[in-house]
Amino acid sequence: MNYFVGVDIGGTNSKIGLLNDQGDILKSTSIKTDSIEGVDYTLNKIWETVLEMAEELDISRDLIKGIGMGIPGPVIDQKKVAFFANFPWEKNINISEKMEEISGVKTRLDNDVNVIALGETLYGAGKGYSKSVTIALGTGVGGGIFVDGKLISGATGAGGEIGHMKLEKEGKLCGCGQKGCFETYASATGVIRETLSRLQINKTNGVYKAIDGDLNKLEAKHVFDEAKKGDEFALSIVDYVAEYLSMGIGNVLNIINPDVIILSGGVALAGDILLDKVKEKLPNYALAITIENLKIKLGELGNDAGIKGASALTI
Amino acid sequence: MNYFVGVDIGGTNSKIGLLNDQGDILKSTSIKTDSIEGVDYTLNKIWETVLEMAEELDISRDLIKGIGMGIPGPVIDQKKVAFFANFPWEKNINISEKMEEISGVKTRLDNDVNVIALGETLYGAGKGYSKSVTIALGTGVGGGIFVDGKLISGATGAGGEIGHMKLEKEGKLCGCGQKGCFETYASATGVIRETLSRLQINKTNGVYKAIDGDLNKLEAKHVFDEAKKGDEFALSIVDYVAEYLSMGIGNVLNIINPDVIILSGGVALAGDILLDKVKEKLPNYALAITIENLKIKLGELGNDAGIKGASALTI
Repeated sequence: MNYFVGVDIGGTNSKIGLLNDQGDILKSTSIKTDSIEGVDYTLNKIWETVLEMAEELDISRDLIKGIGMGIPGPVIDQKKVAFFANFPWEKNINISEKMEEISGVKTRLDNDVNVIALGETLYGAGKGYSKSVTIALGTGVGGGIFVDGKLISGATGAGGEIGHMKLEKEGKLCGCGQKGCFETYASATGVIRETLSRLQINKTNGVYKAIDGDLNKLEAKHVFDEAKKGDEFALSIVDYVAEYLSMGIGNVLNIINPDVIILSGGVALAGDILLDKVKEKLPNYALAITIENLKIKLGELGNDAGIKGASALTI
Repeated sequence: MNYFVGVDIGGTNSKIGLLNDQGDILKSTSIKTDSIEGVDYTLNKIWETVLEMAEELDISRDLIKGIGMGIPGPVIDQKKVAFFANFPWEKNINISEKMEEISGVKTRLDNDVNVIALGETLYGAGKGYSKSVTIALGTGVGGGIFVDGKLISGATGAGGEIGHMKLEKEGKLCGCGQKGCFETYASATGVIRETLSRLQINKTNGVYKAIDGDLNKLEAKHVFDEAKKGDEFALSIVDYVAEYLSMGIGNVLNIINPDVIILSGGVALAGDILLDKVKEKLPNYALAITIENLKIKLGELGNDAGIKGASALTI
């Protein structure tokens, strides 16, 4: 039996898993990324952790045949990272080469959302489909496009950056510096922005009550929870978000025409109250032929998607 | 030497070419499609024409190893046509099977714009690039996405239908029945619609003069020609079109992140007056990393792109 490592490198913590060639996680753990200590420090620490895990599982290090990593930034040719979002690491580091020097094990990387998409496609909600698009609706919106066995990683690692597709020509300002990006409407942050804006003119609603009038407390979850209870203020925001979510998904359908759309992340947790509206609105945005046999599913792997998908980069 | 057939089936005429395995057109011709006579009639007529061409070139029919076809409609698995736009032919016909029965030669098909994209990518403006998006700016807007050796044809043949990506939530009504589609702004028809609208309130301009005040005469070319002469009315329309063209291209860049964007079709003939504005506006819509090394090129194969690309489906 051969074994594989999946690593999901995050801004604060990095998740590390040891898997078999079926994508089953035999053991996993989380360590501080400590990016401030430098890239070599972090990579060495990851490899030491892998060796400890292997020892605990009584797995010889010779049987570890691949390391896959999900990276918060654009990855070129599954080896080089164009830049690390929020890390004090150099541009264009060949992480694959570095990790192979440290470990002696073949290493491949891809963007973290692409890796989640790969995990969900191979082992989760997308199992059995050959064309999938995974949309991670979290603080921002990320996407991973999988077509006939391969991720669309792009010429410079920006493939699947659907969060920055523009839905309004002069829309809301985005963290990227541009305007009207999909993620300014459909991310958890987008939900919060719209809610904060509306709370300035409407304080007699369930959301305002749920946060005790303290705007600092506001999370997307408050809106979804109140909507589920039937609060009209919250329902109207869910409708607003669903409209843009449908427009964004519709555009992806017209361009990629996948078998399945997989929604993950905090906003997806809103569940049917959001999904039902999206299914209702989608025919206004997507060509009929792209919806006919389409499945829209919620992600199934949760936090394991990154580790599983990363390991699959080398299986 | 083996030979290949490329066919570009159009609403009125179908272009047929006989090519060598380098994609060189040895002979080509055009026949009436006569779709009204039925699919068997048209396919037989195409094959008869191929045999005549082969005879003229003194090529034995045994050396014809493949037939590729560009189809005006969504194609599934390069064999089955979901429906023919504007043809009185049945849905879900397996054209590949039918043509193989008639000719005894392996036959593969894809959507006509996808096939143009394949031609430009392999033999024209995209030669040498592994990731390209071809945008055909004609009566409508079509797209063909080529990534690492394969077209993104989609689960139901609608891959690359970027003309129906929505750029305005409540935008101009499109022929597809939806609103705000890319093609309502960036196609030749889009240029005409906007110009007609503006001519209602402004008749003292070069365009109005060029068409002798006869709105029926108006073509996109009038607008581009007057813009090149410096007419302000025309320049302002070019600017409007360039804005939406940049937004649409920007979205494609953020999702696919290709090496090269290839523009073809009538609107692309506007040339630098349009392209320069697009290059100027693109940084407002596309992530910087997707533009850094991007090439934006005009198609190079003209009317041969379809035949060359079609033949490549079986080479």
